[in-house]
Amino acid sequence: MTRILISNDDGVHAYGLPPLIEALTPLGEVWVVAPESEQSAQSHALTMHKPLRVRRRGDRFFGVSGTPADCVYMALNKLLPDRPDIVVSGINRGGNIGNDILYSGTVAAAMEACLVGIPAIAVSLHVDWEVHASKHHWGTAAALTARLVGEVLRHGLMPRTLLNVNVPDVPPEALKRVAATSMGVRRYENTVDERLDPRGQRYYWLGGAHESFDPIPDSDGQAIERGYASVTPIQADLTSWPGLARVHRMDVFYTQNEET
Amino acid sequence: MTRILISNDDGVHAYGLPPLIEALTPLGEVWVVAPESEQSAQSHALTMHKPLRVRRRGDRFFGVSGTPADCVYMALNKLLPDRPDIVVSGINRGGNIGNDILYSGTVAAAMEACLVGIPAIAVSLHVDWEVHASKHHWGTAAALTARLVGEVLRHGLMPRTLLNVNVPDVPPEALKRVAATSMGVRRYENTVDERLDPRGQRYYWLGGAHESFDPIPDSDGQAIERGYASVTPIQADLTSWPGLARVHRMDVFYTQNEET
Repeated sequence: MTRILISNDDGVHAYGLPPLIEALTPLGEVWVVAPESEQSAQSHALTMHKPLRVRRRGDRFFGVSGTPADCVYMALNKLLPDRPDIVVSGINRGGNIGNDILYSGTVAAAMEACLVGIPAIAVSLHVDWEVHASKHHWGTAAALTARLVGEVLRHGLMPRTLLNVNVPDVPPEALKRVAATSMGVRRYENTVDERLDPRGQRYYWLGGAHESFDPIPDSDGQAIERGYASVTPIQADLTSWPGLARVHRMDVFYTQNEET
Repeated sequence: MTRILISNDDGVHAYGLPPLIEALTPLGEVWVVAPESEQSAQSHALTMHKPLRVRRRGDRFFGVSGTPADCVYMALNKLLPDRPDIVVSGINRGGNIGNDILYSGTVAAAMEACLVGIPAIAVSLHVDWEVHASKHHWGTAAALTARLVGEVLRHGLMPRTLLNVNVPDVPPEALKRVAATSMGVRRYENTVDERLDPRGQRYYWLGGAHESFDPIPDSDGQAIERGYASVTPIQADLTSWPGLARVHRMDVFYTQNEET
């Protein structure tokens, strides 16, 4: 029996959850462990300094009072009867493209599985934020994810890698292509909005609007801009091997009192 | 005039902050923007859903009510008069070794700078947690950091890379060697501690003790186990290039209605 764990970062009430459950149910026994509340931009935060609560929301469906990474950790180490064959995180509302990946709770949930050797897929729908979440084409992303899950269950992934998938918000028949991509670079306006509270004290809101994707050939942002779905293999190893050669040349690598 | 920004994830009151300020002051104008409270395992979380407060704590010294990444973002986009020449994050109490890097607020603060093209160094002291924070050899890490800052200011780093530095908690004269390393794999006991609150409701604590570093030659964990300091170049690009070849072979890359 194939066991599939679903998590996300938009929480148990997210519009992106039911379509994913529906698309993956034919492929195996689906478990859902998701945050009780929205956790966007939580990145790979793990909750170590306060305890977590778990709420049973249905058959094989749990809410956790923590981050996406907490959910997968709890699922793997407490809630599931056995190791899942694959972990799918999503469908996130909003693309996780280029450096978004570093901030993404959706990707972190998949990474948490990847780190213990379970194949994982993170899926995001690249939406126009003006459109209500109930109006998005979740089914387009769900159908592609089901195909990818089938592929991964059959052929596996390289060790310590996961798939980061971004899908444009179009009907399935309008999806032009699925592209294998690299992680590109996404630019935002880096703004800090300064305001005064009713007591005259300053406070700040971080973050500006999307500006552009760098024109890196075959990158995730370029694919999305062309209306393609994007599949990027992401690895847990952040070593810069070219950087390592340069570090070796630095004038700090002394040997002192070293045993030989 | 060289401008140096310091941040951390242990907060404005951390024992690791004053030694770092002291060691870097001879190298330039030091600014400190750090979290008001401890933010360990916050990873690259950015605070988007609530506003931030800033507290001026002294000359060129600010506390921010957010995460390490928030601090660097606020520093770069609001608090500093101009772009710093380098960002140093630390000195963290506790190593950020192997997959710790993915959860680390210390590394995320450095990454936030790296993403906008500012050279950055994350520094952590690998400590015995039984020893009180006031008793650690912060000066060993601070002195090495000052040397690395000098090197980076002179020679730069590769684009979109940062240095992740781990230092054993030994007196400076006992530091055997500084090693250029790759990011290795750290194992923890993956445990969930289930308890009952005074009202009989279950709650959970995540996370177990350090177990081992995988025996990967020239990796950060191996260096630390030998009593060496470790310098690992880390990159923002998580693309798995070997994984990309494999993804290309998957049976999902269709072309449909594609313009040529």
